[in-house]
Amino acid sequence: MAKKILLGEERIPRSWYNIMADLPEMPAPPLHPGTHEPAGPADLSPIFPMGLLAQEMSGDRYIEIPEEVYDIYRIWRPTPLVRATGLEKALGTPAKIFFKNEGVSPSGSHKSNTAVPQAYYNKQEGITRIATETGAGQWGSALSMACKMAGIDLTVYMVKVSYEGKPYRRVMMQMWGADVHASPTTYTEFGKKVLADDPDCEGSLGIAISEALEDVVTHPGSKYALGSVLNHVLLHQTVIGEEAIEQMNAADAYPDIVIGCVGGGSSFGGIAFPFLREKLAGGKNTRFIGVEPTACPTLTKGTFAYDFGDTAQMTPLLKMYTLGHDFMPAGIHAGGLRYHGMAPLVSHIYDKGMMEAVAVPQSRVFEAAQLFANTEGIIPAPESAHAIVTAIDEALKAKEEGVSKNILFNLTGHGLLDLGAYQNYLSGKLQDYDHPEAAIAGSMGHLPQM
Amino acid sequence: MAKKILLGEERIPRSWYNIMADLPEMPAPPLHPGTHEPAGPADLSPIFPMGLLAQEMSGDRYIEIPEEVYDIYRIWRPTPLVRATGLEKALGTPAKIFFKNEGVSPSGSHKSNTAVPQAYYNKQEGITRIATETGAGQWGSALSMACKMAGIDLTVYMVKVSYEGKPYRRVMMQMWGADVHASPTTYTEFGKKVLADDPDCEGSLGIAISEALEDVVTHPGSKYALGSVLNHVLLHQTVIGEEAIEQMNAADAYPDIVIGCVGGGSSFGGIAFPFLREKLAGGKNTRFIGVEPTACPTLTKGTFAYDFGDTAQMTPLLKMYTLGHDFMPAGIHAGGLRYHGMAPLVSHIYDKGMMEAVAVPQSRVFEAAQLFANTEGIIPAPESAHAIVTAIDEALKAKEEGVSKNILFNLTGHGLLDLGAYQNYLSGKLQDYDHPEAAIAGSMGHLPQM
Repeated sequence: MAKKILLGEERIPRSWYNIMADLPEMPAPPLHPGTHEPAGPADLSPIFPMGLLAQEMSGDRYIEIPEEVYDIYRIWRPTPLVRATGLEKALGTPAKIFFKNEGVSPSGSHKSNTAVPQAYYNKQEGITRIATETGAGQWGSALSMACKMAGIDLTVYMVKVSYEGKPYRRVMMQMWGADVHASPTTYTEFGKKVLADDPDCEGSLGIAISEALEDVVTHPGSKYALGSVLNHVLLHQTVIGEEAIEQMNAADAYPDIVIGCVGGGSSFGGIAFPFLREKLAGGKNTRFIGVEPTACPTLTKGTFAYDFGDTAQMTPLLKMYTLGHDFMPAGIHAGGLRYHGMAPLVSHIYDKGMMEAVAVPQSRVFEAAQLFANTEGIIPAPESAHAIVTAIDEALKAKEEGVSKNILFNLTGHGLLDLGAYQNYLSGKLQDYDHPEAAIAGSMGHLPQM
Repeated sequence: MAKKILLGEERIPRSWYNIMADLPEMPAPPLHPGTHEPAGPADLSPIFPMGLLAQEMSGDRYIEIPEEVYDIYRIWRPTPLVRATGLEKALGTPAKIFFKNEGVSPSGSHKSNTAVPQAYYNKQEGITRIATETGAGQWGSALSMACKMAGIDLTVYMVKVSYEGKPYRRVMMQMWGADVHASPTTYTEFGKKVLADDPDCEGSLGIAISEALEDVVTHPGSKYALGSVLNHVLLHQTVIGEEAIEQMNAADAYPDIVIGCVGGGSSFGGIAFPFLREKLAGGKNTRFIGVEPTACPTLTKGTFAYDFGDTAQMTPLLKMYTLGHDFMPAGIHAGGLRYHGMAPLVSHIYDKGMMEAVAVPQSRVFEAAQLFANTEGIIPAPESAHAIVTAIDEALKAKEEGVSKNILFNLTGHGLLDLGAYQNYLSGKLQDYDHPEAAIAGSMGHLPQM
């Protein structure tokens, strides 16, 4: 059979899939941070354009992809579905392992799938400037390219430890015209406050989100953009799963297991939800597994509760699995998975038992990444390599049980901007972090529990 | 029309194309460095396996791609042919601009096309260890992956200035199991000699080739591998042009102009030769343009003469355009184009007037790269961006003349491992280098002139 299942451009999905339309039970709504009443579009319109808010709250099953977005998707979509025959052989497994390669996008990750429509809907409403945050830099670089193509100015608050440790990600954003600042900055009141308390603060995603939000509310005409967590972001990512269904069918190998890493949850939702739709409609009994780092085990050790998305408590309260909004994750290399919360939609389906979750230490992640690089030729992003660990585990389980299984995982990005991390790994400097459970309790007490 | 012309796996060419079979006149043969007699397979068998030497000297028009090589090509081939509609729009040109994207390979450049068969033919003959050199690192990383997959040990002599300035390229090679040394090293007599003369020597490709050759002749059972210049390397690269012909035909846009950067000449030969075959057979009157840096203007300012491929004068003498084997090019960022010589086959067709050449300064190269990144979403390798400069120039000429033309250029690789260079560019630190013509004369005198 073919190694790669390639689809022609005409097979890029014409619609995004909204799982809200098919959930047996509705997730809890976001709450206004002040009143604790359900937050509506009016509460969020200062920071998001209405086009995205309409999607955030939509009950429609399918939402059409605008022609202008489709036209940019054509640069890299449909992405290849690849049969990992080299990895299978190395494992001696009867399982068939497939991966969806989202690393072929211009920014090197799945983030471009939502960056492009987010820039588009802002442009539609006349927005000329966006502010955002980025941790590891995947989101910031994806949005930089999308904004450049839409003619929108972009300011990025980049977590300081990444700004300094990943200069190439910064250069990438600057090549696409973005203004990039190391967060905490002195441009915002919140940044100044953080720096006053701790001048050496290396930043966190929660802090950077707070700074970007403050920037937006103090600069009329600007809007904010978020690269994960929210419904509309997961919606845009469903192009991954929609293509994958067609490709797995073409390979005559509908998946028994779908695996993805989980940080904010958007790439996982993106690949899983279309397959979950098929299962809910009476299709195959596919298992769904989210893989997170032991250093930031939101699903496996977090609490399902209302919490803020940011450190300064400016966002609406979201009902989600969380380690607490002031949780400061250890400095693992998979920066995209260092987030205290989890998309409400992913949290909801996990709470309802519709998916599983596992946590893996980064030493295993890098070993799996190297095996993958040596057998499939692709150096994966450390985030994506979390999914590889579990794909390997499941393939070895199939081998033990002597059964053939179809395993699909999401290769969310390549690791060519993460070679500093691999350098640490190769020189034996990698460290594992287990989650200090104590950190959870302290940061949740003052939040509404539902 | 489609933005990308994707071919199915079954359209990967089954044969490489050998232009030797179709040239109206034969190129001058390589000469033994000692006797100055034509060098035969016996002279070269200490450093190359016979399978590759047979290709080097073959007159067959087509050489079948072995099944095992084909199987690895399937990881990334066929590569996409892309219509650069964003760039066309920005230029306001009536020309249609297309590029062949070789940056989608595991190592990020076209070098994988020859690395895989070179590892294969060595393995066929029981070779368990290869030594090579690398400048910018594209070749070294491509061969690292190919050797890892073939189970061959690899030692890489990496030009010191790149070893230090491009640590990520080194990590990439190490991820694929290669031993990487900063050249000049103290592992070879030649390296020691260079260091004795100049302890701060930053290395050059010519020196690194000499070290790798010395390594091979002093380690029985080892062979050498070269990433450009030689006939068999250009042969392997013709998969690029063979696919491109089919894709340009599918786009109903057979090229009026084919453009490629030229360093050692292999990617240029790879894209150009199949189209040149069509032209020689009475097809369309396509123009072929090689683009080189003004800092290393081998075709535009070099001499067509016999010269050594390396600094220590260990290689056979090759009849080629050359700036002299001890020419030390300025430290431009397009490391892959910093070679004093040029493939004998490319030199021959240039000498016969079958192609044109232009030299461009690196400031224009980086401007073109940024325009391409902003309009097409891809950050190109600085090497590849040389071709973009000329594609833009030709598209603007077409605009001035008010004629539509089909322009095809070879995007040999992406620039994600070159972001340090882009950082220099963005911070205004880029410098242009013109070639000091004086450097040419001094280094050619003692060579046979034919």
